[in-house]
Amino acid sequence: MSAEEQRVAALDAADPLAGFRDRFAIADDALAYLDGNSLGRLPRATPARLAQVVEQEWGERLIRSWGEGWMELPRRVGDAIGELLGAAPGQVVVADSTTVCLHKLAAAALAARPDRDEIVTDVDNFPTDRYVLEGLARRRGATIRWLDADPSPEQVAAAVGPRTALVSLSHVAYRSGRILELDAITRIAHAAGALTLWDLSHSGGSVPVGLDAAAVDLAVGCTYKYLNGGPGAPAYLYVARDLQDRLRQPIWGWIGRRDPFSMEPGYEPADGIAAYLSGTPPVLGIAAVEVGVRLVAEAGIESIRAKGIALTELALELADRWLAPHGVAVGSPRDAAQRGAHLALEHPDGERLCERLAQRGVIVDFRAPTTLRLGLSPLTTRFADVLRGVAVLRDLMEEST
Amino acid sequence: MSAEEQRVAALDAADPLAGFRDRFAIADDALAYLDGNSLGRLPRATPARLAQVVEQEWGERLIRSWGEGWMELPRRVGDAIGELLGAAPGQVVVADSTTVCLHKLAAAALAARPDRDEIVTDVDNFPTDRYVLEGLARRRGATIRWLDADPSPEQVAAAVGPRTALVSLSHVAYRSGRILELDAITRIAHAAGALTLWDLSHSGGSVPVGLDAAAVDLAVGCTYKYLNGGPGAPAYLYVARDLQDRLRQPIWGWIGRRDPFSMEPGYEPADGIAAYLSGTPPVLGIAAVEVGVRLVAEAGIESIRAKGIALTELALELADRWLAPHGVAVGSPRDAAQRGAHLALEHPDGERLCERLAQRGVIVDFRAPTTLRLGLSPLTTRFADVLRGVAVLRDLMEEST
Repeated sequence: MSAEEQRVAALDAADPLAGFRDRFAIADDALAYLDGNSLGRLPRATPARLAQVVEQEWGERLIRSWGEGWMELPRRVGDAIGELLGAAPGQVVVADSTTVCLHKLAAAALAARPDRDEIVTDVDNFPTDRYVLEGLARRRGATIRWLDADPSPEQVAAAVGPRTALVSLSHVAYRSGRILELDAITRIAHAAGALTLWDLSHSGGSVPVGLDAAAVDLAVGCTYKYLNGGPGAPAYLYVARDLQDRLRQPIWGWIGRRDPFSMEPGYEPADGIAAYLSGTPPVLGIAAVEVGVRLVAEAGIESIRAKGIALTELALELADRWLAPHGVAVGSPRDAAQRGAHLALEHPDGERLCERLAQRGVIVDFRAPTTLRLGLSPLTTRFADVLRGVAVLRDLMEEST
Repeated sequence: MSAEEQRVAALDAADPLAGFRDRFAIADDALAYLDGNSLGRLPRATPARLAQVVEQEWGERLIRSWGEGWMELPRRVGDAIGELLGAAPGQVVVADSTTVCLHKLAAAALAARPDRDEIVTDVDNFPTDRYVLEGLARRRGATIRWLDADPSPEQVAAAVGPRTALVSLSHVAYRSGRILELDAITRIAHAAGALTLWDLSHSGGSVPVGLDAAAVDLAVGCTYKYLNGGPGAPAYLYVARDLQDRLRQPIWGWIGRRDPFSMEPGYEPADGIAAYLSGTPPVLGIAAVEVGVRLVAEAGIESIRAKGIALTELALELADRWLAPHGVAVGSPRDAAQRGAHLALEHPDGERLCERLAQRGVIVDFRAPTTLRLGLSPLTTRFADVLRGVAVLRDLMEEST
């Protein structure tokens, strides 16, 4: 065992979260899966929970299950997610996709600021966020003020003003992993009279968020990354309690209506967060999300955050020593306090390297044009996986020189 | 065995689709489940297919599964549904909820008729359809022309004109089960220069539709009724090929963009039907839908239609003999050619009767204010279930007099 191997073995042995890896289905223990920030692993409890929903709740109880728990799923699982995000109950629901949730809340925000015609976001916000905002801006005749990637509070302050309706950013940047200053930026937006919409896809379940404490207005997030909800699992949305009855989302469906089974004429929004639902809840998807969320809650977001820092610190150190000499640049913040649970490595040959890593049992992902992301989902990633991933990448670089 | 029991036993014995009931999980064979039009039963093959998706595709292959079939699911299953609906490949995708699909397509239609400001629908269209149209009309400053329930072509003809942007109706009415004249109404709408958006939730998988033959513009539908896709399963949408590049849906997400993984600036719609996708495909949900759709395709929509007629004819005859004397009125068309696969019974005490039927092992549903729906999903409903359902209802009425 090399000195490095001994060192990571000691880190894994001392890891208070190490036992959580056994709570996930791991078919190939040697696989270095550094992509849990794109698709989180399968919790071991998920197949049994899905079998229960499918075989008993659907197969046996049939339509009666709507009255025996299904109708409450969006709110029940939403509240569990809210707890991870620092949101008091009654402000989060699970629904739709992240894209549709973004659309609903951004549209609601723009409608609430009819006299303002600017949206602030950044050029490297996740693509679907940018496209949703572009679509809404086009229809509203609004303008997007594009900030540089990963904007600082100062950059946001320089962009907002009396015309700003909405500031919409990702809390943890999907490419660099930078944690944006959610508190400061929210204050700056509010001081300008704008609303805020945060995308928590890369922070929910990996770093503390503190939505209520920061007085965030609106947020959305994805459940198939750090929350381990499964491929294409439904998303969540947050609307601060004091805004729920003042804003109005645009997709008026029966599940968001007051007393939906009255089938009455005329849409009237339900009270509270339920008004932000539209269609029939996707029961299978939400049930799977619940299992992942409960695991994250059991581990505790502070412990998860601490391990995320330790994993990315190790990756950063190894990248500096082993990869920098081969022209690989670190694309993430060097200060752990400013960095989420993934590390971006930049290399012009990134796409081919990603494929070659996979051939050697190291799964990372590539984000055009040059970014390799090492996603180090704390509940399922070992320090040994980090070592292996960086070492294999170093070997590939050495072979190609 | 009574004469009636002998008669239905003979009908079940002669039913060419009788064997399909064994393809579904039936926990309680005595339960008369007359609600497959609300939530279709669980296909026996679904748990194994879901286990494969969850345990192998997600658990073992992880992120690699996106390149090994998941990305194609919305179109692959969409094409299979399209075949049931008389739509050539490349015009149907599975996505979102019925509500969100309705919103996307109705918004696209209104945007394509910017000089027109009226929407035609009927007062008893399914609530989510009405609410979606109201929401869009409100934002557009458009007016809804409300027709009486279950409108005839003549009624539609009297309502459309140079101001009509969109005619949006359900093919089979959720309450009465009436089959609207899709061909004639589509022609009338087109003659007025309007687009058509049909909700196929109660016809997809129960009656032939013929979308291409009727030159329908847009359609949506639900997969958890006659397609047996599971609770809250994702919906489908149809956009006629020649409109796909001319219309534009409002929720611009990465999965609907050309070359989504380029992550490039600026939304450009993908070619063809893919432009109508928005967020990440809900893999578990679509996989379950595929099992249900394949079963319907295997049985054949013409055979399903023939059995649907036979089941509702029996229910109608028994209702006339046994229930009419107790003040129960038939709320569905008496002509089988105009009736889908459910029968509406009207009684002022409908809600309480629905609950009492359930206590005796007969599941129907109640739609306020007075409708009991007997949903006779042809693949899973026996003639004996119809007899039992109506007989128990008769007994309840006799006891309460």
